[in-house]
Amino acid sequence: MPPVTTLPKPLQRLIQALERLPGIGPKTASRLAFYLLRAPEEVSRELQQALAELPSVTYCQRCFYFAEPGQTLCPICQDPQRDHTTVCVVEDPLDVVAIERTGLYQGVYHVLHGVLSPIEGIGPDDLRIRELEARIPREGIQEVILATNPSLEGDATAAYLAQRLKPLGVKVTRLAQGLPTGGDLEYADQATLARALLGRQPVE
Amino acid sequence: MPPVTTLPKPLQRLIQALERLPGIGPKTASRLAFYLLRAPEEVSRELQQALAELPSVTYCQRCFYFAEPGQTLCPICQDPQRDHTTVCVVEDPLDVVAIERTGLYQGVYHVLHGVLSPIEGIGPDDLRIRELEARIPREGIQEVILATNPSLEGDATAAYLAQRLKPLGVKVTRLAQGLPTGGDLEYADQATLARALLGRQPVE
Repeated sequence: MPPVTTLPKPLQRLIQALERLPGIGPKTASRLAFYLLRAPEEVSRELQQALAELPSVTYCQRCFYFAEPGQTLCPICQDPQRDHTTVCVVEDPLDVVAIERTGLYQGVYHVLHGVLSPIEGIGPDDLRIRELEARIPREGIQEVILATNPSLEGDATAAYLAQRLKPLGVKVTRLAQGLPTGGDLEYADQATLARALLGRQPVE
Repeated sequence: MPPVTTLPKPLQRLIQALERLPGIGPKTASRLAFYLLRAPEEVSRELQQALAELPSVTYCQRCFYFAEPGQTLCPICQDPQRDHTTVCVVEDPLDVVAIERTGLYQGVYHVLHGVLSPIEGIGPDDLRIRELEARIPREGIQEVILATNPSLEGDATAAYLAQRLKPLGVKVTRLAQGLPTGGDLEYADQATLARALLGRQPVE
């Protein structure tokens, strides 16, 4: 029997490389590969250049958000205008971008780079928790705002952090949970509605 | 007002480059970029290498399927065992792979590289139709099997090709349309069921 006709090697390799990305299955990978094959050369070139530059991304040595190339601290940690006694603890760098976008936060950050997840084998030592503890006396931090996601794992991580940080004599707070603005009470899930009820605020 | 904190330039560029791919929106692009940032270096390196090799992919000068590097004809056109008087016309190279996988076809192919689509501004001159016409007398082709997709555009392209090729004195056939094997009559769409009825075959 003659060998089954296959795609050219470079195309096969590209499909395989794309399949390794999360959420990209064989069908999507071959659709993307065929697109790249036919697209203007610059589409592929820009992607290659961006991938090649990726290792130049470095993290802030203090808060583990991104630092500019050649810098040890991120722009936020370097900013003397910020309140360096308040630290907002988040899971991921994108959370910093989201909070900065509100324009309401004047403190600094600490990026954990993940959440506690026994199922995935992620324990306290896999996150930047030790570094957070060390910052509290060293930087004279007064308040730690726990801004991990309002998910099972985010809540568990926040509870763990609260226990571990309180003995250090620092105020520990958690972002408010309740109905999302613009949401519809009728369509709110049970857990959200329960949180909104339990956390109800006096109207002044 | 201070500038809003943004992601590092290389990460921004990667997100932009990924967003140019079809079906990848801003959310997916940033998810993929963050994955690539944290993934083992080889994931990104393999992708870069595969992208860099892509321009080495060339097409068969006769049927416009893929040719091996340095060859002008594809393995199928070069194979003396194949029936070179029967040509199967398909939209895309992947269709060749699909038909080859059946193991039932002994003829050769012609890849149009698209379908007629007035909405997208794709006319006959944008497809490999002229090259198909030229092959018929030159290669002594007896039968042209129209195997464009059983879609609105695929059907229209097949109808157009049939009109254009018949004056050349060649037999023109179209792949059978009907119920898919393993399908369920109850769940077949109207158009498929109508085709299956109209195309019913005598039971011998």
